[in-house]
Amino acid sequence: MPVDPTEAAMASAYTPEEREAVYRSISERRDVRRGFLPTPLPQELLDRLLTAAHSAPSVGLMQPTRFIVVRSIETRTKVHHAFVEANQQASQIYTGARLDAYSALKLEGILEAPQNLCIVCEAQSTQGHGLGRQSMPETAVYSTVCAIQNLWLAARAEGVGVGWVSIVSPDALCSILTIPAELTLIAYLCLGYVDGFGNAPELERQGWERRKSLADVVSYERYQAREQS
Amino acid sequence: MPVDPTEAAMASAYTPEEREAVYRSISERRDVRRGFLPTPLPQELLDRLLTAAHSAPSVGLMQPTRFIVVRSIETRTKVHHAFVEANQQASQIYTGARLDAYSALKLEGILEAPQNLCIVCEAQSTQGHGLGRQSMPETAVYSTVCAIQNLWLAARAEGVGVGWVSIVSPDALCSILTIPAELTLIAYLCLGYVDGFGNAPELERQGWERRKSLADVVSYERYQAREQS
Repeated sequence: MPVDPTEAAMASAYTPEEREAVYRSISERRDVRRGFLPTPLPQELLDRLLTAAHSAPSVGLMQPTRFIVVRSIETRTKVHHAFVEANQQASQIYTGARLDAYSALKLEGILEAPQNLCIVCEAQSTQGHGLGRQSMPETAVYSTVCAIQNLWLAARAEGVGVGWVSIVSPDALCSILTIPAELTLIAYLCLGYVDGFGNAPELERQGWERRKSLADVVSYERYQAREQS
Repeated sequence: MPVDPTEAAMASAYTPEEREAVYRSISERRDVRRGFLPTPLPQELLDRLLTAAHSAPSVGLMQPTRFIVVRSIETRTKVHHAFVEANQQASQIYTGARLDAYSALKLEGILEAPQNLCIVCEAQSTQGHGLGRQSMPETAVYSTVCAIQNLWLAARAEGVGVGWVSIVSPDALCSILTIPAELTLIAYLCLGYVDGFGNAPELERQGWERRKSLADVVSYERYQAREQS
């Protein structure tokens, strides 16, 4: 039964206004693919976002995440070419109306966003002395994804749009950015000021997919599959 | 050169107080293994945390994340046994002073935290129609990790400690919680009110490892390895 938390517990909670700000960034965060403005992000703002990412949890305190800031239009053009090639292949699984819908979607802002950010994981790092990684070595990579979500929420609070481009070959990105084979390519992001944030996910607003409710994804004490809503 | 962002860009930024709250949750979030209080979390608070997680980005809006709330002490005892077994194996890679240090660490709060949370990924879900997952199918699993980080930050703002237990066999967890083989076990978390939050990561305070600086992990235009600090 819910009971009042102890005084010690309450002492660690933020003020209602602070809690609301955290929840606001979580609910208003969007995957942005359009509307990037040409104004570059100031370096100090970018540093705040990178610091937020670098503050993420990491298994055994291994801090495996590495960041590559890409501003060069030449490099972004190469990445855009890699996207176009991957997107052409991706579209081939669709037919009919679904293909038409797919083709109408804008799925990246590589050239519009004045800065891109490639994020890789040095999963072989000895920092942390292997703690926590023996039963589940994939937690190294998961640490890097936590860093991305930190950055994404901080960016929303700063009014900065972030778009995750997953329609691109990791091998192509590693080649373009001279990333050694022992590192794991995790994400390629587009970052920039935007003309606004949608009040719902772009793919929902475009009619591609609808969100399911929380009740459809929570079970208690053991796993129970739910009906799809 | 940094220039002032446009009015449209500024309009999307949060107030300084709101931004500070978001950054505060990011910098003060900790992986908590000790100090959990026996007071259970009210259901409405747990629902807020799960809603925050469920609001995470997901590739193609596939929403692959499934949550299993575990309160039963019988179930938590089974999971704790699985931890002890995995931890015994994990300790065998250390010798001498490092083994002593490892053995002195408290690495989970499975029995102390009144509620645990298992998080799995339904990577085969057809929701989202496969969009964004062909070049990088691992983005399904990454979507679930983003959900975990959302929950972690919301929990910090609520004064709720979260500890990620990675020293446990995924197979053992799937058996205990009747998770089907087609789902991917991502994380097992301990959740609860705590007697406080450390001002630095537990593994740093215990002398296990030190954090590196941001400058050591950022490069520009192409990947460049840095000296380890």
